[in-house]
Amino acid sequence: MSYALTITVCRPFVDALAATRASLADHGFGILTEIDMQATLKAKLDVDIPPQVIFGACRPPLAYAALQLEPSIGLLLPCNVVVRSLDDDWTVVEAIDPQTMVAMTGNDALAAVANEAGQRLAAALDTLTHAPAGS
Amino acid sequence: MSYALTITVCRPFVDALAATRASLADHGFGILTEIDMQATLKAKLDVDIPPQVIFGACRPPLAYAALQLEPSIGLLLPCNVVVRSLDDDWTVVEAIDPQTMVAMTGNDALAAVANEAGQRLAAALDTLTHAPAGS
Repeated sequence: MSYALTITVCRPFVDALAATRASLADHGFGILTEIDMQATLKAKLDVDIPPQVIFGACRPPLAYAALQLEPSIGLLLPCNVVVRSLDDDWTVVEAIDPQTMVAMTGNDALAAVANEAGQRLAAALDTLTHAPAGS
Repeated sequence: MSYALTITVCRPFVDALAATRASLADHGFGILTEIDMQATLKAKLDVDIPPQVIFGACRPPLAYAALQLEPSIGLLLPCNVVVRSLDDDWTVVEAIDPQTMVAMTGNDALAAVANEAGQRLAAALDTLTHAPAGS
């Protein structure tokens, strides 16, 4: 199975990053964590990678439901959403496919939670393919 | 396959949390993110769960190597390490098994990175089963 829900948008990285942040909020996700991978790897290793940010997105009712069904599910939370630059004009935005939670745990009771999370993440990404406001 | 490396230690949660933080550092992991799940779910949903913290642990050389091999691997980074209370005396500490990176991506080139990450995480957890300093 694929582990990612992926779109590639014709937007500069900084614009795509802001739009992803807004879209996740619009689709009911809080952003619990944010890692600037480019800055982290520059600081720690003095290497250069294209701009890349990892968001940890969480919809609390879904996280709570998942914890009741699978005590160790924190290992797979929150849902990562990665924004990474391809070039000056194009940016990849991808989310972990929540179906991986069902596959990795082998716990079919998580299917409903994974389905809702997946639908919301897919909708959040789909919004980004629309024209930016004011364009 | 199991997705977790798990130990259960006879330590109160707060002690196990501090020991896990120190052990991860001792084994070469930086903690990039930290989510207090108990506080988050209380604040967002007004529900009560036992104390649980999710650390996002990263060893930058391994993260950088993985990114060169699998552009979307940020979706599976950093490695989650969960500390959760069972009762006043016992605490579960578990880490995502990095072999899941190989399984989920289907990219066998990640095996060496996953092996090193797994060995380090297992060693970090193993340390916690030893008697605490001063006990």
